[in-house]
Amino acid sequence: MVAETLVLRPPGRAERTRRALAAAALARLRADGSFTTEEVATDAGVSLATVHNRFPEGRDGLMAEAFEAVLDRVVEVTRLLEVERLLENGLEQVVADLVEGLVVVFEEETLVMRAALARLPESQSLRHAYRDHEAQALVSITRFIRLGQAAGRIARGDPDEMAVAVLVLGQGLNNPTLLGSSRRPQVVAQLSDLLTSMLSPGR
Amino acid sequence: MVAETLVLRPPGRAERTRRALAAAALARLRADGSFTTEEVATDAGVSLATVHNRFPEGRDGLMAEAFEAVLDRVVEVTRLLEVERLLENGLEQVVADLVEGLVVVFEEETLVMRAALARLPESQSLRHAYRDHEAQALVSITRFIRLGQAAGRIARGDPDEMAVAVLVLGQGLNNPTLLGSSRRPQVVAQLSDLLTSMLSPGR
Repeated sequence: MVAETLVLRPPGRAERTRRALAAAALARLRADGSFTTEEVATDAGVSLATVHNRFPEGRDGLMAEAFEAVLDRVVEVTRLLEVERLLENGLEQVVADLVEGLVVVFEEETLVMRAALARLPESQSLRHAYRDHEAQALVSITRFIRLGQAAGRIARGDPDEMAVAVLVLGQGLNNPTLLGSSRRPQVVAQLSDLLTSMLSPGR
Repeated sequence: MVAETLVLRPPGRAERTRRALAAAALARLRADGSFTTEEVATDAGVSLATVHNRFPEGRDGLMAEAFEAVLDRVVEVTRLLEVERLLENGLEQVVADLVEGLVVVFEEETLVMRAALARLPESQSLRHAYRDHEAQALVSITRFIRLGQAAGRIARGDPDEMAVAVLVLGQGLNNPTLLGSSRRPQVVAQLSDLLTSMLSPGR
């Protein structure tokens, strides 16, 4: 049993269909900000019955899968918070890369984010995806702060509290007023400075 | 014509019904996070036809009215940014009051906010309410920064850029992870410090 689950096998047909449907939903969301189950079935070349077979939750299940892909990108950006990069490039650069990376993902995925966040109150799968990825991001941030403190490159303080403050500021970047502002580069630079000064040991 | 519109008259019956319906929708949202048009009609003691007569947009129209009431509270908090209070109590206190005020409103109105934000992509009235109040908040913040700079109590810089940064941070406080955190007081204090240090002329 254990051996079997550990063997990496190519995805079976059911899994391939599932992935094709999720990819179709994501593409529709990115292009139009919405999709119907019928459209996604057509795009993936399967019947509506097959969609419901693969995604018993229907549209919200497909949406959750697309949302996961986008949240994976966000978590990926928080992985830029590496203590090696901190020692090599300095806090200012690491923070600037984080902020810029988040702004890029939030901008590129605006339509997917908006559609998914709108369904959050109704869908447990979407809420689960959100919480799960938020927890992953918090782990990355907390670890970075803890190790950075150990290296004397990050201000003292409770790493968990500081991580939540970073998270709040990072999520705040997903803001239509900011993303649509003609002064975006300046405001982004200001928010980067702010985060740097919060984490800086010389504060 | 002009004289007539300037005369303040008590609201007529149609307007009173409208207000009663909006109040019923707000009460339902605060208690349950949702409402049906039928429930609101019953609560206000009118027929469903009357609801649609007063709110041709139906449920979203009622939701927009409730959302406005909540956003009015948020704008009211930004009015704490007065240059008189700055001169009297200092930047740290004014910022702490702003942050605390926002956290209280976001917490008390979580259910209304969540329901309204979820309908934002679908409803123009809701988007309009949001943008209108955001613009009002930006006016308050920008004015505070400009006058504070004139008084030498706020750091130099483009007031419009700085105001958007304050707005982004303020909106970031509307964050379930923050509001639900056991370390909320500490994180809120940290975000207050951050905002204070951004605006402080001695930076």
